[in-house]
Amino acid sequence: MGFVYKADPVRGAVWARLFAERMPEVGFHVWPETGDPATVRYLAAWQPPPNVMETFPNLEILFSVGAGVDQFDFGSLPPGLPVVRMIEDGITGGMVEYVTASVLALHRDFPRYREQQRAQRWEAIRVHPAAARRVGVMGLGVLGQAVLAQLARFGFALSGWSRSPHRIEGVDCHAGQDALPGFLAGCDILVCLLPLTPETRGILDQQLFAALPRGAGIVNVARGPHLVAKDLLAALESGQLSAAMLDVTDPEPLPPDHPFWSHPRIWLTPHVASMTQPETAVEAVIANLQRHRRGEPLVGLVDRRSGY
Amino acid sequence: MGFVYKADPVRGAVWARLFAERMPEVGFHVWPETGDPATVRYLAAWQPPPNVMETFPNLEILFSVGAGVDQFDFGSLPPGLPVVRMIEDGITGGMVEYVTASVLALHRDFPRYREQQRAQRWEAIRVHPAAARRVGVMGLGVLGQAVLAQLARFGFALSGWSRSPHRIEGVDCHAGQDALPGFLAGCDILVCLLPLTPETRGILDQQLFAALPRGAGIVNVARGPHLVAKDLLAALESGQLSAAMLDVTDPEPLPPDHPFWSHPRIWLTPHVASMTQPETAVEAVIANLQRHRRGEPLVGLVDRRSGY
Repeated sequence: MGFVYKADPVRGAVWARLFAERMPEVGFHVWPETGDPATVRYLAAWQPPPNVMETFPNLEILFSVGAGVDQFDFGSLPPGLPVVRMIEDGITGGMVEYVTASVLALHRDFPRYREQQRAQRWEAIRVHPAAARRVGVMGLGVLGQAVLAQLARFGFALSGWSRSPHRIEGVDCHAGQDALPGFLAGCDILVCLLPLTPETRGILDQQLFAALPRGAGIVNVARGPHLVAKDLLAALESGQLSAAMLDVTDPEPLPPDHPFWSHPRIWLTPHVASMTQPETAVEAVIANLQRHRRGEPLVGLVDRRSGY
Repeated sequence: MGFVYKADPVRGAVWARLFAERMPEVGFHVWPETGDPATVRYLAAWQPPPNVMETFPNLEILFSVGAGVDQFDFGSLPPGLPVVRMIEDGITGGMVEYVTASVLALHRDFPRYREQQRAQRWEAIRVHPAAARRVGVMGLGVLGQAVLAQLARFGFALSGWSRSPHRIEGVDCHAGQDALPGFLAGCDILVCLLPLTPETRGILDQQLFAALPRGAGIVNVARGPHLVAKDLLAALESGQLSAAMLDVTDPEPLPPDHPFWSHPRIWLTPHVASMTQPETAVEAVIANLQRHRRGEPLVGLVDRRSGY
């Protein structure tokens, strides 16, 4: 029974070591090594090889090494092949850290203070109590809920929005397109953690920004194509938005001289909010392999119709 | 029975309204109004008037409107006059927010990413799991303990240092001068929340920085004179320190053209980490007045020998 890992080889070496310890019965290979392709049942990849079923005719599961699967071309994957997103504590912890850091930085006006520092201006900006600061999260999956649980510990007024209805204690949950304007009107700080699908592509646009309270801040830790770059620049210019923390861009890396690089109220990081940690990722994958053997449902199985 | 408030008059107006509601039997005045000085038993001040006992001969308690009392000249205060620090939820919550924001910003390399952004460099910096990031807090009073409790929720490896021994669950506590080097050797990120006393003035100096692991980050949310400015600049220059988040400076405001203003790895805010919120401060003061009437010990009573 073969398992092929096709992504960053440095992390791949850690996966190989952990698999050798934890599941020595699996023939583990780091791409381009594959062993006998006919024996490969499992593939963990950021990008599978083209014509994956010709390469691995007996493939049973495709694991994404990331939390998202929008990098996969589903049209090229057989409809019956289970595709599994990465849900593991390393990704979740990293995302909770990054979003909390970003929300607190916006809440406590770090971008404005950095501008004031450059201007040598010593001037206090009024602090709002956390209970009066409304933070909204779009996307209420594992990551969104973990982020909300951490933000709750600071006493923020929390709300959430997703396609399908959710109930989360202490969070004012909204669902569906019709509920979006009402949700947005109550977000001083908006966090995007949505999956990238045809419905959510370009959702962070002029119309959405206009529905936020004036001076709102945004955090995009989902995917670059959620955001319409020129609309963000216009909203910052007009003051409709006060600042944006972006961990993702479109394309990545951001091209030289893109206006985001030099904008004082856009803080960029190079898609590092959350990274799969080999140790916890391997644990999650092994747990799923064991479920698969027992005929139990896989954790993170992607619904092809919704795309996540 | 008179109460005089002598600090920011805008906040004073809120205090007056809240006292009128909660303790109407008290004659509340906002300085320079005092009513009959002989009836004044309580003074809440950032700076008391000179010769305070001549101004208010029957003064029973001096309340600081801030968490610290280093702004008081104890030599001019009668030894028997109880002096009370402000301990209230507004100060604590603000401090927890600011320190968490700063520690997470250092942990997730926000200062370096801002430098990379200015240089148009898209380059991931390795993320350390929180459990492998050692955060140490100097000063284990109400604020230090609240900060540690919040940081614990991210899974950081926590330690603390103070003059007198403490036991805090999940925190490796060190006490006294002899334990300082051992504590410092285990701090990737160091937070200063010490009271300012003759012993702690200038404690953040070359010798302390040299005892930290190379590349450590620091957060000073205590008082400006804790830090030796030229030693910080030298430690950043040599790479011994990677970044500093400073909410306090010496003097304040920071003078024009001070090198801190333009240093890319020093992030300045103008003493805003934590501010007394009138609503919660008045509640804390009223609770202390009630304790005083019942003959119970005051919360936040300053020990004149230790200076805090």
